Amino acid sequence: MRISDLSRRSGVPITTIKHYLREGLLPPGRATAATQAEYDDSHVRRLRLIRALIAVRGLSVNTTRELLGAVSEHESDTHQILGLALGVRPVTGTADEEGPRDAEADALLAEMGWEVSDHAPAKAVITETLETLRSLGVDYDWRSLVPYATLAKHTATLDLDQLADATDPLERAERAVLLTVLLEPALLALRRLAQEDESAKRYGG
Amino acid sequence: MRISDLSRRSGVPITTIKHYLREGLLPPGRATAATQAEYDDSHVRRLRLIRALIAVRGLSVNTTRELLGAVSEHESDTHQILGLALGVRPVTGTADEEGPRDAEADALLAEMGWEVSDHAPAKAVITETLETLRSLGVDYDWRSLVPYATLAKHTATLDLDQLADATDPLERAERAVLLTVLLEPALLALRRLAQEDESAKRYGG
Repeated sequence: MRISDLSRRSGVPITTIKHYLREGLLPPGRATAATQAEYDDSHVRRLRLIRALIAVRGLSVNTTRELLGAVSEHESDTHQILGLALGVRPVTGTADEEGPRDAEADALLAEMGWEVSDHAPAKAVITETLETLRSLGVDYDWRSLVPYATLAKHTATLDLDQLADATDPLERAERAVLLTVLLEPALLALRRLAQEDESAKRYGG
Repeated sequence: MRISDLSRRSGVPITTIKHYLREGLLPPGRATAATQAEYDDSHVRRLRLIRALIAVRGLSVNTTRELLGAVSEHESDTHQILGLALGVRPVTGTADEEGPRDAEADALLAEMGWEVSDHAPAKAVITETLETLRSLGVDYDWRSLVPYATLAKHTATLDLDQLADATDPLERAERAVLLTVLLEPALLALRRLAQEDESAKRYGG
């Protein structure tokens, strides 16, 4: 297909596609004339993933280039590709020794039996949240989060179920980014709405 | 108690307490001398709620003053107070006719049987999320959110359970704000961690 069809099928404007070609994010098409090239389905899938990483996850062009390089190295390893796309594992081997700072998050993960990479940024969020709650006088530790973690596991199962019908690993990675990042505000909104309903049922007139 | 004890028990610095007194957020204590006043437990509770609204929910002093006024009017109505503190219902009677813009959110709420105020800002978030997902080529409508809404209902039940032991309505409102707002990043982090675990179990080597 020509660049105009690539733009139509991916939803990415032609000028943006040309920018990604110049930046080396998207491999060049097969030249068919001095100023024309032919693109295929692999370009559509890669372009959609690039858009998800840049426009939805908010990554820079440089980080996206590195990440796509790492994705290419693990072409057939869906678990690695999902981890990279979602940012649970670092693109480069930053194995900085963080020490036992996230002891509470580790205790929670052990209780749940979850296999999670050591340096997952989400672990620090758990630790910080617990510290903030305690500093404001709420009696909370990792055990308080266990019921929430159980529900998060159900949520993650729903998330992963929705990737099952995407057969190409890049397509799966793109969908994982969209559904993970874009659903975040909706999941928080659903919690607020459910809280209001629960409050109405417990305390409403 | 004196202002220094009020500061110690609420965790709010004395200068901040004086600022809230001047701004009329906190009612004055009982004057015991020209420059001294006596405060009681109701000041502690109110001060903690003010801190939750300003420091955690990020409200302005003016909005907080209005909100506290509305809370006073509904002193014994826990459902109203929670709705006000969490921002599901507007402080002033802004019943602007929004029309049927959130038809999809309404369909979801009807399916779930949830009692939610018409102008809940969270409804617009649901609508926007669905529109964004579709604009990016993900085949999604309100039905896709039903399983997530079911899990959100379980989460909200956990949330409300944790308010049950707070007997004073202001204390309950403060705790509702802390647990709702501060747990948000932790709940999203738990989802990411659970996704990684689920991915490891499905696709890991």
